[in-house]
Amino acid sequence: MKVGLLQFKPEFGDVDANIEKVQKLLHNKNFDLLVLPELPNSGYLFSSIDELNKLAEEIPNGKFCNALVKICKEINGYIVSGICERSKGSFYNSAVLVSPAGEIKIYRKLQLFSEEKLWFKPGNLPLETHEIKGTFGNVKIGMMVCFDWIFPEITRTLALNGAQIICHPSNLVMQYCQTAMFTRALENHVFTITANRIGKDINGGKELAFTGKSVIVDPKGNYIYRGSDDKEECFIVDIDPSKALDKHVTKLNNVLEDRREEFYFN
Amino acid sequence: MKVGLLQFKPEFGDVDANIEKVQKLLHNKNFDLLVLPELPNSGYLFSSIDELNKLAEEIPNGKFCNALVKICKEINGYIVSGICERSKGSFYNSAVLVSPAGEIKIYRKLQLFSEEKLWFKPGNLPLETHEIKGTFGNVKIGMMVCFDWIFPEITRTLALNGAQIICHPSNLVMQYCQTAMFTRALENHVFTITANRIGKDINGGKELAFTGKSVIVDPKGNYIYRGSDDKEECFIVDIDPSKALDKHVTKLNNVLEDRREEFYFN
Repeated sequence: MKVGLLQFKPEFGDVDANIEKVQKLLHNKNFDLLVLPELPNSGYLFSSIDELNKLAEEIPNGKFCNALVKICKEINGYIVSGICERSKGSFYNSAVLVSPAGEIKIYRKLQLFSEEKLWFKPGNLPLETHEIKGTFGNVKIGMMVCFDWIFPEITRTLALNGAQIICHPSNLVMQYCQTAMFTRALENHVFTITANRIGKDINGGKELAFTGKSVIVDPKGNYIYRGSDDKEECFIVDIDPSKALDKHVTKLNNVLEDRREEFYFN
Repeated sequence: MKVGLLQFKPEFGDVDANIEKVQKLLHNKNFDLLVLPELPNSGYLFSSIDELNKLAEEIPNGKFCNALVKICKEINGYIVSGICERSKGSFYNSAVLVSPAGEIKIYRKLQLFSEEKLWFKPGNLPLETHEIKGTFGNVKIGMMVCFDWIFPEITRTLALNGAQIICHPSNLVMQYCQTAMFTRALENHVFTITANRIGKDINGGKELAFTGKSVIVDPKGNYIYRGSDDKEECFIVDIDPSKALDKHVTKLNNVLEDRREEFYFN
């Protein structure tokens, strides 16, 4: 199964330019599942609700989603992408799973980071997993967005629901996550794909830099890929997703079945 | 507050030699809280129940506990140590908290590793925290043992119960934990003290090597100490345990209060 990520720099406030950039960077690529960063349609550093009104889109009929559907159909692959979503007058920092048939599943970031709390409503959808299908077989994937990573319960819940691959669109400003993701992969025996963005957003008299270094980790906690901190890059790698079905750390230990639930959170 | 750890090599099967070694290595040390490795009274690599019968002790009246009580009184400090425990005909891979007044609290390893499952009963006590007191003030500590680390629920439960310092006696054979402990510290904003052993156990035709590299991590995920992989060493450092009371990652984010419990484990 060919999985990968696109690390790039969205232009704040220019959805059309971002669509064009994604189309160009994915032109002639071949993948079964590809992960894009958080908020790649809008950019990150908002300074007003007016900007959100202008940049967010309804799912599934907005132009960024339409562009993703077109790419997925052409390539016959799935994309998980962050998206600045508008729904019933509210805004969500969301992720979408787009299938080659044009079906779309939504996840809304549960753990908003810092000033995102000023702009977005916290996620209100369950941590579901979704089965994707192809010549690679049937594989379950889970979605989480950026800061969700620091709460171990998020990845754990997705793993308990059967996720083999955690798709993780990100706009990381610190570098903890890239170093810590091996823990999330190992403790759940899942693949993780963290697609981070690069570059700066400059808006409303503020400036914010993002750290790149996108990572892919295997279920034993080995780094398959570590991206650069400042280059746009599309990385695709062949993995065997069935490796995430085996939850054994030793012959006698299983990271999910060994859980002593009755002692947790008491 | 002076906290630290003792990294050393217990002699398999020789409780008296191990008591003597701990006494010698802690002679004239000055600490408020010190953590010893897992199973420092007995050693690790059992090959029969007879060995456990001979080496395990009842708490609080066994000779290893008595020796710890004596040290704690002399130094006027607390010790958290692993201990091979016998109770009502069963054996537990336990940890004890010993106070300068000679009081003893017990934790029994919840997540047994590999062949430990052949020898020990899984822990049956709650993940409590304990308040310790001194010139350093009142501080809450939690205990977990070795492989417990890979289950994020264990550290999280201790943190939710108020633990500021996670005391973590260990006999690590792999090196994941030492690299991953910064994640446990950061995601809970707690101090962690992982006291690992060094050297090999050779017993019953088998051999097992331990990885040393004991670590102390602060609530922001910074390594305060990384031990050697092969030397006996006692490291003591001054920390401000109140730093573990502040759970903020940013002004608007708190690693415990931000938890979206209603979405976890569903």
